[in-house]
Amino acid sequence: MRYFDDIQAGDVFELAPVIVSAEEIVEFASRYDPQPFHVDPEAAKASAFGGLVASGWHTVALFMGAFVRGVLLDSASMGSPGVEEIRWLAPVRPGDELHPRVTIEAVRPSSTRTDRGTIFTLCEVFNQDGTLVMTLKARSFLARRPV
Amino acid sequence: MRYFDDIQAGDVFELAPVIVSAEEIVEFASRYDPQPFHVDPEAAKASAFGGLVASGWHTVALFMGAFVRGVLLDSASMGSPGVEEIRWLAPVRPGDELHPRVTIEAVRPSSTRTDRGTIFTLCEVFNQDGTLVMTLKARSFLARRPV
Repeated sequence: MRYFDDIQAGDVFELAPVIVSAEEIVEFASRYDPQPFHVDPEAAKASAFGGLVASGWHTVALFMGAFVRGVLLDSASMGSPGVEEIRWLAPVRPGDELHPRVTIEAVRPSSTRTDRGTIFTLCEVFNQDGTLVMTLKARSFLARRPV
Repeated sequence: MRYFDDIQAGDVFELAPVIVSAEEIVEFASRYDPQPFHVDPEAAKASAFGGLVASGWHTVALFMGAFVRGVLLDSASMGSPGVEEIRWLAPVRPGDELHPRVTIEAVRPSSTRTDRGTIFTLCEVFNQDGTLVMTLKARSFLARRPV
């Protein structure tokens, strides 16, 4: 089990790649972001994107799945108070292979709750061409190692 | 069709409420955020949350579905470059009824692309008790009204 005390600024986690299918793009967006360029291939062709693109929230969700499976499930995660910034920098299209990377930017023990600390992460997602498609700066609470 | 030119700072959109089920909490999180307090009711009881809670990303996705269906599908949406801040302020639990509200904080015509402008939104989600469970500050591109 990885505790707050086991994580240092500068640590980098390269996460397992994720392939995005057209079916999953449409399925996610049909429920949570049914804009035409996310759910309708013909309408997407006529849009500024020139074809079907994943909802930005789907890209976040795919990143999060990889981060949880690769890091948080082995960590003493206590949830997250929030996110500082998300940037969607390039479209994510059917068949893309996403490569997520998480860099620990800072760590801060809680001043009020001695059982936990906050880690500050820079999360980057690249596609198969090395293009940076998304950045996300988030916070997570981790439990301190029991004494 | 609602264009960039039809939206002013101060406009407020009260969106349709969304009820969150335990089944959907577990289904979403199993794919995209499989931390124990999101997918396993027994483990969740033993966690700091004291019971099953929705993934923060699920709350975002439910908000986005309501925003798209209530506003963006009738608008000339051209996607979003990103988000400035998300805060998860209170847990979302099975059976909660979420009431989302979007306030237009500012509007800015693009200085480089004359076909569009950016709207800056403050998005708030309240539960059935009036507790603010999430805030999100985002940007969206909207097309300008054709002349």
